[in-house]
Amino acid sequence: MITSLLTDHYELTMLSAALRDGSAERPCVFEVFARRLPSGRRYGVVAGTARVVEAVANFRFGPDEIDFLRSAGVVGDETLAWLSDYRFSGDIDGYAEGELFFPGSPILTVSGTFAECVVLETLILSILNHDAAIAAAAARMVTAARGRPIIEMGSRRTHEEAAVAAARAAYLAGFATTSNLAAGARYAIPTAGTAAHAFTLLHDDEPAAFAAQVAVLGPGTTLLVDTYDITAGIRNAVAVAGPALGAVRIDSGDLSVLAGHARELLDSLGATETKIIVSGDLDEYAIAALAAEPVDGYGAGTAVVTGSGAPTAGLVYKLVEVAGRAVVKRSENKATVGGRKTAVRRHKPTGTAVEEVVAAQCTPTPMTHDRALQRSFIRAGEFQDLPTLAESRELLRQNLISIPWEGLKLSAGDPAVPVTVVPSGGS
Amino acid sequence: MITSLLTDHYELTMLSAALRDGSAERPCVFEVFARRLPSGRRYGVVAGTARVVEAVANFRFGPDEIDFLRSAGVVGDETLAWLSDYRFSGDIDGYAEGELFFPGSPILTVSGTFAECVVLETLILSILNHDAAIAAAAARMVTAARGRPIIEMGSRRTHEEAAVAAARAAYLAGFATTSNLAAGARYAIPTAGTAAHAFTLLHDDEPAAFAAQVAVLGPGTTLLVDTYDITAGIRNAVAVAGPALGAVRIDSGDLSVLAGHARELLDSLGATETKIIVSGDLDEYAIAALAAEPVDGYGAGTAVVTGSGAPTAGLVYKLVEVAGRAVVKRSENKATVGGRKTAVRRHKPTGTAVEEVVAAQCTPTPMTHDRALQRSFIRAGEFQDLPTLAESRELLRQNLISIPWEGLKLSAGDPAVPVTVVPSGGS
Repeated sequence: MITSLLTDHYELTMLSAALRDGSAERPCVFEVFARRLPSGRRYGVVAGTARVVEAVANFRFGPDEIDFLRSAGVVGDETLAWLSDYRFSGDIDGYAEGELFFPGSPILTVSGTFAECVVLETLILSILNHDAAIAAAAARMVTAARGRPIIEMGSRRTHEEAAVAAARAAYLAGFATTSNLAAGARYAIPTAGTAAHAFTLLHDDEPAAFAAQVAVLGPGTTLLVDTYDITAGIRNAVAVAGPALGAVRIDSGDLSVLAGHARELLDSLGATETKIIVSGDLDEYAIAALAAEPVDGYGAGTAVVTGSGAPTAGLVYKLVEVAGRAVVKRSENKATVGGRKTAVRRHKPTGTAVEEVVAAQCTPTPMTHDRALQRSFIRAGEFQDLPTLAESRELLRQNLISIPWEGLKLSAGDPAVPVTVVPSGGS
Repeated sequence: MITSLLTDHYELTMLSAALRDGSAERPCVFEVFARRLPSGRRYGVVAGTARVVEAVANFRFGPDEIDFLRSAGVVGDETLAWLSDYRFSGDIDGYAEGELFFPGSPILTVSGTFAECVVLETLILSILNHDAAIAAAAARMVTAARGRPIIEMGSRRTHEEAAVAAARAAYLAGFATTSNLAAGARYAIPTAGTAAHAFTLLHDDEPAAFAAQVAVLGPGTTLLVDTYDITAGIRNAVAVAGPALGAVRIDSGDLSVLAGHARELLDSLGATETKIIVSGDLDEYAIAALAAEPVDGYGAGTAVVTGSGAPTAGLVYKLVEVAGRAVVKRSENKATVGGRKTAVRRHKPTGTAVEEVVAAQCTPTPMTHDRALQRSFIRAGEFQDLPTLAESRELLRQNLISIPWEGLKLSAGDPAVPVTVVPSGGS
């Protein structure tokens, strides 16, 4: 799957001009970071890095791509010849998936010639801005769910390929399963699902629908009980599946009232082990509001795949160094610091993170409880081993334990860990 | 590009249970509609239908897909055998791309056996919910721009494949160009772009960067003048390119002040024909606020690709008819009406739309200024001719002229055209 046209026109016109005047070969460092977190968010979650590395590996210009660029007149023959030989030969370093980030954290560093680095800008940002947005929203939901499992079921509310990446990001953030089959096939994420209202409507009555489902999926399945009347639905469900019924799902109505009602009714019918799954426009706040109710699991859709109000992570890809010289855009006081950064997170002896130190063109003096945040993904064009998705999931879980407790609050607040950026020549 | 796993697990478990009890072969009608528009929006825009039709054509289960489903234990051998022969043989009808929709408009109708229709639910909704969300936001921006061209440049703010679909939807809605090269290659949408701040930073100084760009792209290019100081940037731009400079772009700062300042300065330098392009977090409101300023074009990014506050269109896919019997979920009073719908839009003799009539299981009595809203996309599995993207673009333009003028207001309000839903047996 060639990725090279998933980019902006201007990356190639810049390349073209730089090839002409010789600046294309200057060694450069680009960094990906966020100037700010979405309003009130206390942390960001790095996600998508493995997808970035795969996309860079597939960033090639074959005959189809070259033909298009020629016929559309995007760039001339000199540039087309250069593109047809393209293979990234530089370095990519950065924060592993599952790391937290804060404003100024240099989550990805791309080093090489200007030419080979600039053309990757759009693709890298597309992947990271999407996946990090979903992972951050999902992580807040996981916190709100307090250990109860969440099924990601938002595929229908986002672009069909974004849905697969969203399922991956949500799983990284601690969701239990996804409804998305392609995510199962590509990333070995456990998939889940039983039936929709249409299945009940298809049948002559609700017991017939439940019987058909139980015949194939067994009594341990989850029956959707709110197509008609929930009380009757639960009675029908237990009558058909017996008290060993796995779960009921409620997808509408006032879930806090209905969950309690369903629990009492299930218990009265002897289905004391039958679980209650709720779904229907749940976001982190709705999940938190159900904490005291007898809910056993959540289904989350729209909110998670749209980043729960923050559909993009606000990451930028900026040139910070040219031939060893720190560079920075100066027209606005954006407090951006030039130069390649090295990042460490400082902790108390207890393990609580207290500060992230980001130093330009130098390495922070090591302290006992520092943790270096950057690792190598690509070195001189050679792809390095990446953490597995399971490892990234565990890394995020540990990271969320390490931040000060107020960082996990859903309410708006400051970043959980302050970032100190040390400019070049700073101490 | 096989699309069959871009779906939810439960579509296949429902299929499995329906195959077992024989209900899979019941003739069904599913409809796609929105229960409401995003908060305060006055219209929705149908977009993505051509992508749906292509995705249905590619909805096949090859050996890889079957192997995954078997190894993951999603469904059993009987269902796998059925899937490996899958080919949609029913009908798909609906509103053409570029039509407007309102709450209750039946924008897509999928008819066939339960089995062949249910498995398409997730994929169809993914495409339509994404593309319609982008098109609606883009259409509002086009209205706000009052004829000035808008470049879509949001690829980096959304998933890399969603970016391509977003570029298509924005073009459908009247954007002039896109930065996304894949959208150019796949859909023949004109692409545009010149340079970023990195290109200026790469060079020893701004004049050197401008000279490199003009050497390749000619003096008719657009020079980005806000890397350092905008006044100096404009002076450098005209000094390098001459008064025939095509345009300057300003990407930061108070654009309303800067545009006026830039115009005066350009005129004083003799560059009276040089255009001014502005960009930087523009949404429909920011574009409208620049109406009185000497701006010649806009670049829109984040807001358009994220639906400007409404990243998903809220479309649902509901079973409305089984073997000729109208069906409807009843647990909530959602005012959903069962049965296959026929939709017409009624107009005044002047051409202004006044009402949309959506009749279940009957055809509204024709009136002089009615326009039928549905057309055939697939008939008994045969793909029908679709409108071109250019035709859809023109259809939307005409539709936006046809609605009452207050429908174009950016402020929150009711749907521009009321929908009257006539239930089965109604008049």
